[in-house]
Amino acid sequence: MKKSPTAEIISVGNELLIGHTLDTNSHWIAKRLTKFGWTLQRITVLRDSLGAIKDGVAGALGRKPDLLITLGGLGPTHDDMTLKGVALALNKRLVLNSEAFAMVKARYSALEASTGLTRFRRKMATLPEGAEPLPNPVGTAPGVTVKIGTTMIVSLPGVPSEMKAIFTASVISMLRASKREAPEEVSIGLVGIIESALAPALDRTRKAFPGLYFKSHPRGREGGIRSLIQLHVYSVDPDSRVKLDDAIAYLLRELSKTA
Amino acid sequence: MKKSPTAEIISVGNELLIGHTLDTNSHWIAKRLTKFGWTLQRITVLRDSLGAIKDGVAGALGRKPDLLITLGGLGPTHDDMTLKGVALALNKRLVLNSEAFAMVKARYSALEASTGLTRFRRKMATLPEGAEPLPNPVGTAPGVTVKIGTTMIVSLPGVPSEMKAIFTASVISMLRASKREAPEEVSIGLVGIIESALAPALDRTRKAFPGLYFKSHPRGREGGIRSLIQLHVYSVDPDSRVKLDDAIAYLLRELSKTA
Repeated sequence: MKKSPTAEIISVGNELLIGHTLDTNSHWIAKRLTKFGWTLQRITVLRDSLGAIKDGVAGALGRKPDLLITLGGLGPTHDDMTLKGVALALNKRLVLNSEAFAMVKARYSALEASTGLTRFRRKMATLPEGAEPLPNPVGTAPGVTVKIGTTMIVSLPGVPSEMKAIFTASVISMLRASKREAPEEVSIGLVGIIESALAPALDRTRKAFPGLYFKSHPRGREGGIRSLIQLHVYSVDPDSRVKLDDAIAYLLRELSKTA
Repeated sequence: MKKSPTAEIISVGNELLIGHTLDTNSHWIAKRLTKFGWTLQRITVLRDSLGAIKDGVAGALGRKPDLLITLGGLGPTHDDMTLKGVALALNKRLVLNSEAFAMVKARYSALEASTGLTRFRRKMATLPEGAEPLPNPVGTAPGVTVKIGTTMIVSLPGVPSEMKAIFTASVISMLRASKREAPEEVSIGLVGIIESALAPALDRTRKAFPGLYFKSHPRGREGGIRSLIQLHVYSVDPDSRVKLDDAIAYLLRELSKTA
C-alpha cells in the first residue's frame, strides 16, 4: 500500500497564544489535507519570536514531513518574522525576490503613491534564497514556497481570506499531485451507552477488523444514567473499505451481548 | 521584574488533525493563562500515537515550561494513550493509583453493576508513578498531575465540559499561586489605513515605548481602497502600564504625519 503523504502545520502569532484569536486556519487546512488523502501529523502554534519560529521549523523538518505549511507572520511589520525564522532554520540568506517584489508593487499600483514606505513593501518580497512566491489574489504579501530535501515548505499569510485564496489557487494543485484515495469514514451515534461499557465490544471489533480505525467521542455525561457516544470509523487501507458496514454491524452485535 | 511563568499545551486527538473537531479547548485555556499573568509559549496538536505523544511531551519538557497541560486521551479505550506517553517521556512506570481508582468507582456507583468492565475502569486510574489524580466533577476519568523538575504536568480530558470542570476546580488555584499582575491591554480599530502605511509609524512608536507590545491584525482588504486594522497593544511591564494611552496618542500623531 502506498504510504499516505504527511504534513505538519506551524501557526505563528501571539494572538493565538493569548486567547485573542481561535486558530481556525489550521482546522480549515486539516479538512482539505484529509480530503486529498494526506495525513496531518502535527500542528504547532508558536509566538512571534524569531527563536521560537526557527526552533519550531527546524523541529518539524527533523520529522521529515512531505509538506510543512507555516501560517502567519508574512506582513510588513516588525513582528512579522516567519520568513526570517524559516531562513534561519534552513541556514539560508534572505534575498529580495524580484518576482515577489513585482507582485507586491502591483497590489499598490491602484493606491496612493507610496512615499517612504518602500522598506516595508520590500520586506514582503524578501524571501529565503531559492524560494518562490505564490500570488496572493486578495492581499499584499505573497505566499512563499521552498523545497528542502523531501519537504516542501509553504508559507501563507495568517489573514484567513488571504490564506484560503492562496491555498485554493496554488496549494491544492500540489496536494492533488500526491493524491491517493481519501479514507472513507462513517460516524454513528450510540445512545444510552457509556464509554467504558463500549470499550470491551470495541476492543473485540478492532481485533476482527484490523484495517479500520475506530475513535469514540463521548458527547453525553459518562457519570450520568444516559449517555451519547459518537463513534467515528474510518478505513486506513483502501482495500478494506467494503468492511466498514460489516464492522459496525459486528460492533452492534457485540454491544447487545454485553447489554 | 519578575519573569512571567510559562506554559505549554499539548492537545491529543486524531479528530483535531483530520479537521473533524476544532481545538477550542486550547483557546479557552489560553485566555485563562493570560488572565492570570502566564505566558503560553506553544500549543502542539498530536495524533493518538504513543510515539508522537512521547516525543511531544519530551520536547516540551526540554523547553522547561513551568506548566505543561495535556488535553485528551484519558478515557478507557485503546486509543486513549496520553498517560502512557507521559510515563514513557518521564521514564516512569504506570501504576494503579488507589485514590484515582476510588474516584472512578464512585462515578459508577449510581449505575448498573459493572461486570467485565473492570479492566477499562482500572485503566482510567492507572497513572504515571508519583502522579496524583484531580477529581472530575462531571465525568469519569480524573485529571492527573505530576511534577518533574520545575515543570508541573497537568493532564486533562479532551471532553470540553470535563476539561473545564477540572481546570476550574483544581488548576486555577495553581495558576493563582504563581500570579503576577496580568498585562493590561488595549485594542483599537484603525479604519482606512493599510498595514504597510501603519508600519513606519508603528516602528517609531515601538522605539518610543519599549515596555509595550504592539500587534496589528489586518481585518480589511490590504489591496483595496479602504482597510481596517485592529491594533492590539499591551504592557509586558507592570510599571509601564500608565503609558498605554500615551503610546496610542503618540501613534495617532505619527500616523497623521504620514497621511
